[in-house]
Amino acid sequence: MQMQQTQPAHLHMCAQRSLRLSTNHGPYLQGKVLVDLSNNLKKGIYPEANAEYLQRLVPGAAVVKGLNTLSAWALQNGLLAGKQAYLCGDSAEAKQAVSEVCTRLGLQVLDRGSLVEASSEHRPGPHCILLLLPAHQGVIYAKVEKKEDISFRIMISLANKVFPIVSLVMLSLCYLPGVIASFIQLYRGTKYRRFPDWLDRWMLCRKQIGLVALGFAVLHAVLTFIIPIRYSVRHKLISRVVDEMKKNKTTPFDFDNTEAWGTDSLLILGSVGFFLYVILGISSLPSVGASLSWREFNFIQSKLGHLTLFICTAHGYIYGWNKLMLPSTYKWYTPPGYMLCLIVPSVVLVLKVVLLLPCVDRTLTRIRQGWE
Amino acid sequence: MQMQQTQPAHLHMCAQRSLRLSTNHGPYLQGKVLVDLSNNLKKGIYPEANAEYLQRLVPGAAVVKGLNTLSAWALQNGLLAGKQAYLCGDSAEAKQAVSEVCTRLGLQVLDRGSLVEASSEHRPGPHCILLLLPAHQGVIYAKVEKKEDISFRIMISLANKVFPIVSLVMLSLCYLPGVIASFIQLYRGTKYRRFPDWLDRWMLCRKQIGLVALGFAVLHAVLTFIIPIRYSVRHKLISRVVDEMKKNKTTPFDFDNTEAWGTDSLLILGSVGFFLYVILGISSLPSVGASLSWREFNFIQSKLGHLTLFICTAHGYIYGWNKLMLPSTYKWYTPPGYMLCLIVPSVVLVLKVVLLLPCVDRTLTRIRQGWE
Amino acid sequence: MQMQQTQPAHLHMCAQRSLRLSTNHGPYLQGKVLVDLSNNLKKGIYPEANAEYLQRLVPGAAVVKGLNTLSAWALQNGLLAGKQAYLCGDSAEAKQAVSEVCTRLGLQVLDRGSLVEASSEHRPGPHCILLLLPAHQGVIYAKVEKKEDISFRIMISLANKVFPIVSLVMLSLCYLPGVIASFIQLYRGTKYRRFPDWLDRWMLCRKQIGLVALGFAVLHAVLTFIIPIRYSVRHKLISRVVDEMKKNKTTPFDFDNTEAWGTDSLLILGSVGFFLYVILGISSLPSVGASLSWREFNFIQSKLGHLTLFICTAHGYIYGWNKLMLPSTYKWYTPPGYMLCLIVPSVVLVLKVVLLLPCVDRTLTRIRQGWE
Ligand SMILES: Cc1cc2nc3c(=O)[nH]c(=O)nc-3n(C[C@H](O)[C@H](O)[C@H](O)COP(=O)(O)OP(=O)(O)OC[C@H]3O[C@@H](n4cnc5c(N)ncnc54)[C@H](O)[C@@H]3O)c2cc1C
Ligand SMILES: Cc1cc2nc3c(=O)[nH]c(=O)nc-3n(C[C@H](O)[C@H](O)[C@H](O)COP(=O)(O)OP(=O)(O)OC[C@H]3O[C@@H](n4cnc5c(N)ncnc54)[C@H](O)[C@@H]3O)c2cc1C
Ligand SMILES: Cc1cc2nc3c(=O)[nH]c(=O)nc-3n(C[C@H](O)[C@H](O)[C@H](O)COP(=O)(O)OP(=O)(O)OC[C@H]3O[C@@H](n4cnc5c(N)ncnc54)[C@H](O)[C@@H]3O)c2cc1C
Ligand SMILES: NC(=O)c1ccc[n+]([C@@H]2O[C@H](COP(=O)([O-])OP(=O)(O)OC[C@H]3O[C@@H](n4cnc5c(N)ncnc54)[C@H](OP(=O)(O)O)[C@@H]3O)[C@@H](O)[C@H]2O)c1
Ligand SMILES: NC(=O)c1ccc[n+]([C@@H]2O[C@H](COP(=O)([O-])OP(=O)(O)OC[C@H]3O[C@@H](n4cnc5c(N)ncnc54)[C@H](OP(=O)(O)O)[C@@H]3O)[C@@H](O)[C@H]2O)c1
Ligand SMILES: NC(=O)c1ccc[n+]([C@@H]2O[C@H](COP(=O)([O-])OP(=O)(O)OC[C@H]3O[C@@H](n4cnc5c(N)ncnc54)[C@H](OP(=O)(O)O)[C@@H]3O)[C@@H](O)[C@H]2O)c1
Ligand SMILES: CCCCCCCCCCCCCCCC(=O)OC[C@H](COP(=O)(O)O)OC(=O)CCCCCCCCCCCCCCC
Ligand SMILES: CCCCCCCCCCCCCCCC(=O)OC[C@H](COP(=O)(O)O)OC(=O)CCCCCCCCCCCCCCC
Ligand SMILES: CCCCCCCCCCCCCCCC(=O)OC[C@H](COP(=O)(O)O)OC(=O)CCCCCCCCCCCCCCC
Ligand code: HEM
Ligand code: HEM
Ligand code: HEM
Repeated sequence: MQMQQTQPAHLHMCAQRSLRLSTNHGPYLQGKVLVDLSNNLKKGIYPEANAEYLQRLVPGAAVVKGLNTLSAWALQNGLLAGKQAYLCGDSAEAKQAVSEVCTRLGLQVLDRGSLVEASSEHRPGPHCILLLLPAHQGVIYAKVEKKEDISFRIMISLANKVFPIVSLVMLSLCYLPGVIASFIQLYRGTKYRRFPDWLDRWMLCRKQIGLVALGFAVLHAVLTFIIPIRYSVRHKLISRVVDEMKKNKTTPFDFDNTEAWGTDSLLILGSVGFFLYVILGISSLPSVGASLSWREFNFIQSKLGHLTLFICTAHGYIYGWNKLMLPSTYKWYTPPGYMLCLIVPSVVLVLKVVLLLPCVDRTLTRIRQGWE
Repeated sequence: MQMQQTQPAHLHMCAQRSLRLSTNHGPYLQGKVLVDLSNNLKKGIYPEANAEYLQRLVPGAAVVKGLNTLSAWALQNGLLAGKQAYLCGDSAEAKQAVSEVCTRLGLQVLDRGSLVEASSEHRPGPHCILLLLPAHQGVIYAKVEKKEDISFRIMISLANKVFPIVSLVMLSLCYLPGVIASFIQLYRGTKYRRFPDWLDRWMLCRKQIGLVALGFAVLHAVLTFIIPIRYSVRHKLISRVVDEMKKNKTTPFDFDNTEAWGTDSLLILGSVGFFLYVILGISSLPSVGASLSWREFNFIQSKLGHLTLFICTAHGYIYGWNKLMLPSTYKWYTPPGYMLCLIVPSVVLVLKVVLLLPCVDRTLTRIRQGWE
Repeated sequence: MQMQQTQPAHLHMCAQRSLRLSTNHGPYLQGKVLVDLSNNLKKGIYPEANAEYLQRLVPGAAVVKGLNTLSAWALQNGLLAGKQAYLCGDSAEAKQAVSEVCTRLGLQVLDRGSLVEASSEHRPGPHCILLLLPAHQGVIYAKVEKKEDISFRIMISLANKVFPIVSLVMLSLCYLPGVIASFIQLYRGTKYRRFPDWLDRWMLCRKQIGLVALGFAVLHAVLTFIIPIRYSVRHKLISRVVDEMKKNKTTPFDFDNTEAWGTDSLLILGSVGFFLYVILGISSLPSVGASLSWREFNFIQSKLGHLTLFICTAHGYIYGWNKLMLPSTYKWYTPPGYMLCLIVPSVVLVLKVVLLLPCVDRTLTRIRQGWE
């Protein structure tokens, strides 16, 4: 148990769940303000939040939960100017006292309500799990790969197939629920009925889906940038020249205009799509989002988002079209992949176009304005 | 019209501009708090803000405008912990009541003043328009291109000429007004007179200009990274080897030291310039900017910004110098482009150097300190 | 001295340290609120903050320091909606009055305590200095380079050796203090004694070290992406083909499977490491960090950080292993570099593995829970 005497004599900091607290300090703490800045080392090991437990142990003290999102060293060294501190507590005066100390430390204080709220800070971290997904996926596929007894060297090729496909499908899954919602509203002719639960939940996790999709797209871009550095690619280039020289010494090496057209549009569509993708990501940074009005944010996320989906789908189609005329070396997994991954985006785009038809759009707008 | 009974019996939410509100609910709503969370589906269709209109309809109720920047689903599902909510309203008690509900939902409440302020949330979104510019520009040029009956395959080459040129010119346009302002102050000998209006407005949109310029620079970088993947580039490489082999079988293929020097400094200057460019962009993210002091922010934006401009201009000069000795294949559009785009940056840099001369700098500093 | 009459008659803005203030305006300013929005043009030229100086000059007025982080033009043009304004001052009423004006301008007001705090805004800017480091380092090495009479063309090659090495060492220096701290706690058997001062200070600047390391890593990535565009690389490729053709006209150009395996794992490990590195950077943006709980933030920074270190170290090892079998052309500087840079990361990783052994981990956890 850790106890630190801070400036105001009646303020106490407590950073550890303690079993010895009540017996030792109970009477001493009557009428004092107790600041609980602990986090449990592991989640879910205690049924109630530390702060609530403390309050139960020392009913006479006013417990304020907070500061637990800050670094202990920074706290001790007063290097916290400008940081935000969250406080929860049942006693307004206690919170006021803690708030004053915090302001003196340069902290910006945000009141987060009563003590019961404190538990909600211990929410599980879905944000983090999804961050590991891309790396994980890569590892799994690398393993599958090795089992298939295909040489390690096409690991990058495989990753560069899986990542963009997953990214494109996830991107379309961001925009599918919005389209479904519109059709439900059109079918019902009213907006005053709740959507089914699955749709509701799906719509609420679109941001997470979109960010993971962005992560895969970034990996695809990086893996594409390094293509020409790879030994196998350089080797193929050299051996093609050598072949060329040996075979047709007389015929001039001819330029295939269609292929030039194909690769160039593939690349420009990919680049522009990726650019818009990153803009979507930047606009979902909390501080950027907060500085945009709802209309601006919606314009970027909805209009620009559909444009991104359209451009990335076109990029995928051109890749497929190129495939038909290019002699592909790595055949396994390819045919299903690049064709299957275009189904969901195409469906979303077609449905969206239907919704944009003047007559449908008018009806939908009227429904959304509350006319029935 | 949508009506939701929330926890406190006297609080009502209203998410739609309603024509039937006054007749139906008028008397019922006397003395109640009305929360207006609507946004008009299209801008400028009504002369007054929805909240003001509501207030006129139900004069007896206290209208509070807010929460309209949050997602309706998130609102319904209580998944808003940590989000910011803006409230406007004429009645302090009404705002207090709404604020309490918001805090209970985990929202962080920010008071934005009286109800008249509400309209200002409906400001037009200049931020968004500029985001589409790069994509748009690309499309226009692609069209011009096709009309000129030059094959689609040099689309990337053209985009990779237009984007960096536009970016460099826009970057210099960020730093031109500051220089002009200094000369005006030097000429006038005082800082106590307003700048001409055009200069004022120009200075206010430098951030927007800079971000669009960054967007173009990023596109230039991405298009540069993919150069070696392009079919036409690979083809040129192969045919050069084949040519080489056929022509001078005996002469050793010699290494051009000047060209190696040229491309390498082109690339390193571009990379460092791009790096600093992105740092400028990161420091203009609202939350990063807010955590820097004015002095630090100004150091990055002004000193580092001029350094970025200098390095990017040098990059452009080396490109021009390279051009003179490299046999260029795509001749049209090039000569004006890369030469014209260096004029504005060069002028800005020369003027800035003049301002940094000790005597001029001393005079300027004295003027800015208020000495006359 | 600059004086602007704002809406409330008793509010005055003062943007310049003035020597003529007391004599001219002293009596006139009694009982008025004085807003000091100045920053000194150079640091440390006056012993006290401008606001304190002002207060001493006009003891009868209530001085509020603030708004000095905002742009003067934006301030004059009322384009500040949504921006944050910090206020410091001794008089609560004066701050209230300024706060009201600010709210009317659309500013979000944050109270930063009493006037003495104002000086702390003039803290030196360590953030900025480190931003110049990468550029600077590059310049120094370029100079060393020229003195060594080695051609300018390997500037990129040298930069692309120095940057990743510095980045990897700095990354491991981010995680070394945490490991040392754990061993100190293990040795002492208690957590209730302060760490030595140097360790304390080291731990506090880990964020800065990490961000600089990220900057170097980004430069390494960009310089790697442009490798195949370089003239010298293209030249080497062509001359290798020509050589190949001349020497072994009969033998088929054979594919080295080990080398393919080597470069591909080098590249995939680099890409994944870089991806995780950027995630670390994004999560340390103030607004992203603030939206994560302490547990989530710690998970990303500590767990994901060690994973990043592991992957980047493996990337370095594979590079060294590749080196042994590849005929390296640029020999100087290389052998010490890539081998030395692996020492610190390896030590950190080995120590971390020791700490993760079940028995050690259990003891450490008990110590950290306060059991002795
Ligand atoms: C990189 C990336 C980042 C992302 N970041 C975010 C993020 O930060 N936050 C986020 O929410 N999503 C995010 N997304 C997901 C996605 O971009 C958004 O959810 C996007 O707004 C969905 O657009 P939509 O038009 O399909 O849906 P919505 O705009 O939600 O529309 C869906 C349905 O809601 C109804 N509706 C919409 N507007 C109205 C209205 N004015 N009146 C009545 N009914 C209406 C209609 O029924 C409509 O069909 C992100 C995606 C990506 C790829
Ligand atoms: C990627 C990118 C992002 C950008 N983001 C931003 C952004 O977020 N915000 C932004 O404002 N700009 C931004 N810009 C634009 C630009 O970088 C800044 O406006 C930059 O500060 C201009 O520097 P300056 O020295 O020319 O102008 P300033 O520093 O404004 O100086 C201009 C003139 O103001 C006067 N002046 C300046 N300081 C003083 C002083 N202390 N006392 C008296 N007079 C003074 C002088 O007359 C001076 O010549 C961005 C640019 C880019 C490329
Ligand atoms: C790109 C990049 C960005 C970065 N950004 C940041 C940033 O924004 N902020 C930042 O702080 N760092 C940042 N860092 C540095 C680094 O990632 C973090 O400091 C990281 O948390 C260190 O992890 P650690 O496990 O070594 O240290 P810590 O998690 O601090 O652990 C160090 C020691 O503290 C003690 N300790 C830790 N947790 C507990 C506990 N619950 N109870 C008791 N004792 C404990 C133990 O003695 C432990 O050994 C960044 C690094 C990089 C590369
Ligand atoms: N959408 C937003 O994120 C949002 C946020 C703030 C303000 N606004 C503004 O508010 C006005 C109207 O907004 P709104 O509240 O009607 O929300 P909306 O998001 O504009 O529209 C969502 C539509 O879906 C309905 N809906 C949401 N969840 C549902 C569910 N689970 N089951 C069935 N239907 C569901 C809504 O019905 P209900 O009528 O029951 O909500 C509404 O018809 C517009 O002017 C908009 O600009 C919208
Ligand atoms: N520049 C900023 O963004 C800013 C913000 C906060 C604090 N400060 C601090 O305030 C002190 C002085 O600042 P400042 O207010 O003089 O602003 P400044 O930005 O430092 O200087 C701007 C200069 O341009 C002048 N100016 C601005 N708009 C003008 C216009 N439309 N027409 C003519 N001249 C115009 C200002 O005159 P006026 O004298 O009429 O303003 C001032 O001379 C410095 O210590 C600075 O650090 C500056
Ligand atoms: N670490 C954080 O950043 C942080 C922030 C908020 C809440 N929490 C929560 O608080 C609880 C325990 O945290 P904690 O306060 O013990 O901090 P901690 O960061 O979890 O642990 C740091 C450990 O290092 C010790 N320490 C820090 N600086 C030291 C120094 N200069 N010399 C010697 N030892 C030093 C601390 O001792 P002391 O006992 O003297 O602090 C503590 O043993 C956990 O549940 C954690 O989740 C941690
Ligand atoms: C291919 C990658 C593309 C990356 C594109 C970066 C483009 C920059 C344009 C940003 C537009 C942001 C939309 C917000 C609209 C707006 O103005 O919003 C206005 C807000 C609020 O401004 P005010 O409150 O000051 O008016 O400003 C911002 O939010 C500034 C956002 C800056 C973003 C810089 C991001 C730097 C990160 C760079 C990543 C580099 C990737 C490199 C890949 C090789
Ligand atoms: C070529 C692209 C270059 C990209 C460069 C990324 C460099 C990282 C250095 C960031 C410096 C930020 C300046 C703020 C100074 C500061 O310390 O400011 C201090 C602030 C406030 O910190 P505290 O309040 O916690 O002290 O911290 C920050 O703002 C952290 C900024 C983190 C930035 C990470 C950005 C990640 C985005 C990565 C883009 C990747 C592009 C990839 C291209 C291929
Ligand atoms: C190789 C480069 C890798 C770049 C990776 C970008 C991956 C995107 C995943 C971001 C994960 C952020 C962690 C925060 C967890 C979270 O969800 O955190 C949740 C928070 C808070 O969300 P709410 O409060 O709205 O719930 O959301 C965010 O913080 C959104 C972060 C968006 C980040 C977008 C960054 C764009 C910059 C792109 C750089 C591009 C580089 C290009 C190089 C070629
Ligand atoms: C920097 C931008 C991009 C570039 C340069 C680029 C380039 C490429 C290239 C060269 C290929 C062929 C890969 C191969 O031969 O194995 C490809 C495939 C593909 N790309 Fe992109 N791309 C970019 C961005 C995107 C984005 C943002 C998406 C959307 C999610 C995407 C989706 C796809 C898909 C689905 C494939 C087919 C994958 C397969 O089946 O092999 N790309 N891209
Ligand atoms: C990643 C960083 C960069 C790299 C690798 C890079 C590389 C290049 C290359 C190879 C060219 C020649 C293009 C061609 O042959 O068509 C070029 C041209 C050019 N670059 Fe960059 N560059 C970078 C960043 C920048 C930046 C930040 C700017 C500033 C705005 C810039 C401005 C220019 C200009 C103006 C040209 C001449 C365009 C023309 O007329 O064709 N570059 N760059
Ligand atoms: C985009 C991701 C990355 C790619 C494609 C990549 C690729 C490469 C390549 C091709 C080399 C050999 C360079 C040469 O031949 O001169 C290399 C070296 C190296 N890389 Fe990376 N890398 C990446 C990210 C990283 C990261 C994040 C680190 C960690 C700091 C790192 C650390 C190193 C080190 C230490 C070397 C050895 C440098 C030397 O001694 O020459 N790399 N990398």
